[in-house]
Amino acid sequence: MISLLSLRKQIDAGSLTPREAIALSEAAIAEHEPRVGALVSRNLDPVVPERGALAGIAVGVKDILDTADLPTQMGSPIYEGWRPRADAASVARLRRLGAVPLAKTTTTAFAFLDPTQTRNPRHSGHTPGGSSAGSAAAVSAGMLPLTLGTQTGGSVIRPAAYCGVVGMKPSFGLLPTVGMKCFSWTLDTLGLFTAGVADAAHALALMTGRPGLDLRDKNAGMPRMGVVRQDFCAMAETEALDALDRVRVAAESAGARLHDVVLPAVFAEAFGLHGTIQDFEAAQSLDWEYATHRASLGARLGAHLDAAQAVAPAAYDASLKVADRARRQLPDLFAENDIDVILTLSAPGPAPEGYASTGDSRFNRLWTLMGVPCVTVPVGSTATGLPLGVQVIARLGDDARAITAAHFVETLMRE
Amino acid sequence: MISLLSLRKQIDAGSLTPREAIALSEAAIAEHEPRVGALVSRNLDPVVPERGALAGIAVGVKDILDTADLPTQMGSPIYEGWRPRADAASVARLRRLGAVPLAKTTTTAFAFLDPTQTRNPRHSGHTPGGSSAGSAAAVSAGMLPLTLGTQTGGSVIRPAAYCGVVGMKPSFGLLPTVGMKCFSWTLDTLGLFTAGVADAAHALALMTGRPGLDLRDKNAGMPRMGVVRQDFCAMAETEALDALDRVRVAAESAGARLHDVVLPAVFAEAFGLHGTIQDFEAAQSLDWEYATHRASLGARLGAHLDAAQAVAPAAYDASLKVADRARRQLPDLFAENDIDVILTLSAPGPAPEGYASTGDSRFNRLWTLMGVPCVTVPVGSTATGLPLGVQVIARLGDDARAITAAHFVETLMRE
Repeated sequence: MISLLSLRKQIDAGSLTPREAIALSEAAIAEHEPRVGALVSRNLDPVVPERGALAGIAVGVKDILDTADLPTQMGSPIYEGWRPRADAASVARLRRLGAVPLAKTTTTAFAFLDPTQTRNPRHSGHTPGGSSAGSAAAVSAGMLPLTLGTQTGGSVIRPAAYCGVVGMKPSFGLLPTVGMKCFSWTLDTLGLFTAGVADAAHALALMTGRPGLDLRDKNAGMPRMGVVRQDFCAMAETEALDALDRVRVAAESAGARLHDVVLPAVFAEAFGLHGTIQDFEAAQSLDWEYATHRASLGARLGAHLDAAQAVAPAAYDASLKVADRARRQLPDLFAENDIDVILTLSAPGPAPEGYASTGDSRFNRLWTLMGVPCVTVPVGSTATGLPLGVQVIARLGDDARAITAAHFVETLMRE
Repeated sequence: MISLLSLRKQIDAGSLTPREAIALSEAAIAEHEPRVGALVSRNLDPVVPERGALAGIAVGVKDILDTADLPTQMGSPIYEGWRPRADAASVARLRRLGAVPLAKTTTTAFAFLDPTQTRNPRHSGHTPGGSSAGSAAAVSAGMLPLTLGTQTGGSVIRPAAYCGVVGMKPSFGLLPTVGMKCFSWTLDTLGLFTAGVADAAHALALMTGRPGLDLRDKNAGMPRMGVVRQDFCAMAETEALDALDRVRVAAESAGARLHDVVLPAVFAEAFGLHGTIQDFEAAQSLDWEYATHRASLGARLGAHLDAAQAVAPAAYDASLKVADRARRQLPDLFAENDIDVILTLSAPGPAPEGYASTGDSRFNRLWTLMGVPCVTVPVGSTATGLPLGVQVIARLGDDARAITAAHFVETLMRE
C-alpha cells in the first residue's frame, strides 16, 4: 500500500516531486486495476500542483461525490456520463490542499446494496464490501494513498475491514456532505480510506483545518477501552471474535485497561430503528429516480424503495426521538464505564465469498446513527488470508481520541 | 392572488380542469411578469396531469432547487444554463402529487444578499426582499398559487412579509433539502409561499404525507401566545411595532391570551452566533465556486466568503454548542410561559425603498437556527401601501400549532 505520510515526507525532503508521487499511483493503477476493477473513470492528464500540504497525493473519489472534471455516475445507468458543474465540498478542499483527484472509484448504485464489479484485492473470489467498494479496494491494492467514501449504514468501515485497510468515519458533520448524492441526510457521513491510521489523521486534520486531529502532534497515552459485542444482534463469526480477543490480550499486555461494556436497552432500540430513518429519508432523496427510472435502480434498491414508500411519518418521527435519546445517553455510557473509546468488531466476519453480497453492516449501523467517530484498523488475517479489522469508536466530536486509540491498536497488532 | 385551495375546490367540483387552472397562471404570468421580473425560466409547454391531489397547481421553484426539465442557475453566472439531471426531492414530490413546476423563480446569487432584478409587486420602487425574491413576488403578483423558497437567515419569512403573502418555514428537516444548493447545512430550510395560511397548510400536508398539518381537518381553539420583541437586537420600526400591537389588541378582543415574553440570555447569545455557523459552513459549501470563480460570485457574497475563510473551527464548534443549548431550552420557554406559540415581527419594518438591499433578517435568523416552524401572515399595510406581516413561531415539530395560530391571526386581520 502507498502511505500518504511517507509520500509527503519524501516530498518535503525533496527526494520526490509531487509529479513523481502521482506517477507512482499511475503506475500502480496500470499494474493492478485490470485485476481489481476499483475505478470508474480517471483523469489521464492531471495538473499536478507543486505546492500544498497534500501536493503529490493522488486521491480516489467515490462516484457518488461530484467532481467538476470527471463524470459522476452514482454506480447507476441513470447517471451514465453525468457531469456535475462543481466539485463536492471535500473534493474542492482536497484540490485546494494540492491533492489530485485522480480517479472516481466504484460505488454500489446510489451507495446501496447492489454489488459492484470490484474484486477484493486481498483475496480473489471475495467481495471487497460496499458501498464504497472501489475506495477500499484502490487503497488495498496500493493504487492510491487516499480515497473518499461515504457511510450511511456500514459503507466505510465494512469495506475497509474486508480489504485490510484503515477506514475512518469521522463525527457526523465534520466532513461536509455537500455535493454527495444524498441517501439519508440523518445518516450520510463522509469517510476516508488510507494505508495507516496516521495517514487518515493527517488528511482529516488538513481537510478540516483542525491540526489537533493530526497524530504527529500527539502524545497519546494508554487508552481506556470498553469492549462491546452488541449482544442484541446476531453473533459474529468465530474468526472475528478471536481477532477482537487477540487485540484485547495484546492491549492488556501493553498495559491498557479494557473491560466488557454491555450497551443499555436504548441502543438496541436505536439499532433496530436505523432502517426506518434511512428508508423514510431515502424514499424522499431518490424520489425522482424512483418515479422516473424505477426499472434501472438496481434489483435490491428498487425493491427496497418499493417497501420504503410505506414507512409512515409517525414511525420516522418516533425513531428519530429514540435515536436522539440514545445520542444523549452515549456520553454517560463513556463516563460511567470510565472509558475513552469503545472497541468492537468492524464486521461480523471477514469478507464473504462471492460477489452476490457486499456483506453485513450490523456492527456499523448503530454507530452511524449515533454520529460518532469510528476507525477500523487491520489486525491480521484468517487462516485463508482474509483481512480482519477491529473498530475503535469515540464520543461525538472526540475524533482525536478515536484516532489515537486506533493508532495504539494498529501499533500493537502490526504484523 | 391565486388561492391553491380555491383552485383545488373548483377542480374537485368539476368546474375547472387542471389544464385550465394552469392556464390561469400562464395568463397571469403574461400579464404581470414583465413588470415584476420574478421568473428566470419557464416551462412553456407543460404536461398537465389530470389526477393527483395537487393537479392543476402551477408551482414556482426557487432557482437554487434542481429541476430536471428547466435550468437551475443559482442566481449566478457561474451556473448559466446549467441543467441538473434530477429534480430536487421536493420538486419530485410535487410532481408526484400532480402539480406542475411551471417556472423557476429568481434568487439572489446562491441565496445570499446580492439583490435580484425582481420588483416588489405591491409597491414599485421597493425591494421584494430576498433571497427567495421571485417566489414571494410570483405569489404576490397573482402569477402562481404555490412557490418554493429556502431560508438560511430570513429568506422565506422576510420576502413573504415584504410582498404581502403567507410564507411558511416548516420545522428543520420536514421538507428535504436534497437537490438544493447548500449554503449552510445546519440552517438551510425549505419553505412555501401561498396566498393564505390554509393553502400553505394543505400543500405542506400533502408534500410531507402528514394530513394532521392540514388546516381543514382542524378544530383550532384559541391560541395562547407570547409576544417577543427580541430586545437584544436593534429596535424595529414604528410601523412594524404598531402592526404587532394591532394584532395583539385584535387577538385579545377575540378572547386569546397574550403576554410579553422576554427571551433568556442564551437566545441572545445564539442569535449572535448564527453568522459564525453559517459562514463556516458556507466557506465549505461554496469552496469550488470560491476557488475557481471568485470574481463572479457577486460583490457581497465574494467579500463575505473572503471573511468566512478565517472563521476558526473552534469558534464554529462553540457556536454549535450554544445553539444546541438554546434549542434544548426552547421547549421550557414555551412551557414556563404557558404558551403555544410566539408572536413576533416578520421583519424590522416594511420593504426598504430601492433595490440595493434585500432588507434585514434580524427577526428570522434566531428562529432558523432553532429549527422551529415559522409562519408570516400579512396584517395590512403602511400608509403608503407597503405590506406588513407578523410572524407566528411554534416548538420544533409543532408545525400544526404554528399553522392554526397563524390562521387565527390571518382570520382576525383579514382586510
